[in-house]
This record gives sequence, structure tokens and C-alpha cells, in this order.
Amino acid sequence: MFFVLVAVLALAGVIAHMAPASGQSDGEAAPVFGIKIPPGYRDWKLISVAHEAGDFNDLRAVLGNDVAIKAYRDGTLPFPDGAIIARLAWRYVPSEENNKVFGRPQSFVAGPPTNVQFMVKDSSKYAATGGWGFAQFNDGKPVDEVVLNTCFACHEPVKARDFVFTRYAP
Amino acid sequence: MFFVLVAVLALAGVIAHMAPASGQSDGEAAPVFGIKIPPGYRDWKLISVAHEAGDFNDLRAVLGNDVAIKAYRDGTLPFPDGAIIARLAWRYVPSEENNKVFGRPQSFVAGPPTNVQFMVKDSSKYAATGGWGFAQFNDGKPVDEVVLNTCFACHEPVKARDFVFTRYAP
Repeated sequence: MFFVLVAVLALAGVIAHMAPASGQSDGEAAPVFGIKIPPGYRDWKLISVAHEAGDFNDLRAVLGNDVAIKAYRDGTLPFPDGAIIARLAWRYVPSEENNKVFGRPQSFVAGPPTNVQFMVKDSSKYAATGGWGFAQFNDGKPVDEVVLNTCFACHEPVKARDFVFTRYAP
Repeated sequence: MFFVLVAVLALAGVIAHMAPASGQSDGEAAPVFGIKIPPGYRDWKLISVAHEAGDFNDLRAVLGNDVAIKAYRDGTLPFPDGAIIARLAWRYVPSEENNKVFGRPQSFVAGPPTNVQFMVKDSSKYAATGGWGFAQFNDGKPVDEVVLNTCFACHEPVKARDFVFTRYAP
């Protein structure tokens, strides 16, 4: 069941993310949770990094606004209202330039952006989904409702960490 | 020749990075270039992310201070004096937790920190090495001179980008 949900997400990713996503805010709100791209998110502080192989085939950075970062560092759970976590992702691309210097094929860097996701904490507005609203933007455009409706189910296994997968990287 | 240099760097990394590196400044200056850990670097803005396989076996984030970020975004080359680029790295660790949700082994996350490197631009002080000073700290302690003396040679292939490998990830 989870696999199906992820397949949907991955497919949505593969189809629509060839053009560069801007780091700028966009006026259009995502469906279901009504979230817009938070202004300035590209400048937020780093929570951690990751690589998803398989259909995603990306490198990712997870950033947080000041409320989220403070909660991470203080170990505050659940996250307070106003916390926003941003997940940026770029295609996973081998770097020939780096490999030449390293003398072997070992280097993978961020290629074109794929999509950006947000988790927005509002315990009353999003009470039905653990207090979190979910959004994804492909090249600045919000994804379809059917994608966003799959988010919360996948996050339920980490309910003990307030439904947030990513741990802070020291 | 490059391979040997990298082997030295990798070895230095593997030996000494089992304990967590702090995000805090440390009083001890690195040899050769006399660089200390810049206060607050963990809060700097994100330039890009990468994965090095092989002996490094890490996930990395490259952050920049405000001078460096502005130069990246404006396309300013060479980087102005005062620019500092920080390369953080963590061990490349599979996430069983994420893989369970994804239904397949595809997820890799940041494990314990390995080491932190800095490039500091000072065109007069570091004129002999392209205007850049280089430093690496393992768990807050500067690495040996022999390691730092290898830095510049590896960066020479990207002289056209002012000796900086990492490109800004939009």
C-alpha cells in the first residue's frame, strides 16, 4: 500500500519536473491544504541532506524556517505552529569534472531541480492530518490533489517524531 | 597524481571522523592558512548538495556566507574577498525507516558528521593559492599541514570558476 502511494508520488515527480523550479514565491496555492510557496524558503537553514535512488533518483536538501530549526535544535515535539519544513530536490547527476580530479567515478552532484515540498504546521487548521499541511510544487506549480492526499499516510510511521522523517544533521 | 592526493584526503577523513563535529566555532586555527572555524557557519545558506561514493562514502552540503552567496547568485567571478564556502559532510547511511515506507531499499540519509572544510577568499593573504585559503576540521580539530598542502592542486582544473567546484543549485 505504501509502495503504491510512493509510486504515485514518484510518477508525479518524473513527469513534471524537467524545468527549473524557482526559489521564488509563487501566487498559486496548492490544493487540499491551501499552501503557497513560502517566500524566501531557499535561504532557510539546513536541516539535513539525503539521496533517494530508484524512481526519484535525486539529491535532496531539507531546510527549515526559524520556528522549525529552533524546534529541531531544542528537541521540541510536537513542532509548534508556524514551523515549516521545505524539501528541495535535484536530479542525481554524475560529475565528470569531479571524477576526473578524483581519478574514479565516485562523484554525484545536484542537477536540474525536480520539485519542492513543504510541511506546514498548524495544529488547528490541519488537525485531521497530525497538524501538518502538505504541498508540492513542480516548477512553481502546485501538484494535483490526488498526490497531496497520499502524503499523510506515508508519514504516519514516524508519528513519534511528529510525522517528520528527517532528523537534524549536526 | 590527483588520485594520490585524494587518497591522502580520504584517509585523513576515514581515520579521524567518528565523533560528531560540532557546528560551533573552535579556537584552534588550522595550519598553513591559519583559518579558524567561522562562527555560525552551520546557519549559512545552502549552495548545493552532493554525494561522494568510494572512500569518502558521504553526503555533503555546501554552504556559503552572505558574501559567497551573493557572488554565486550575481555570477561574480572571481569571488570577492571575505567570501567563505563551507563543505559539511556526513556518512552515507541507508535509512531502514524510509525504505520501509518506500517499499524498497532506495533511501540514504546523513549519518554521523565526518569533517568540515572551508575555502576562505583573501586575494592578498592567499595570493599563492588563487586567493583562497583552505582548512579542514575533524571533530573541531584542524587537520595536519600535509593534507592542506594538497588542496589547491586539486582545485586548479576549475580555475575558470575561481577554483570552486560546486555550482549553485537553484
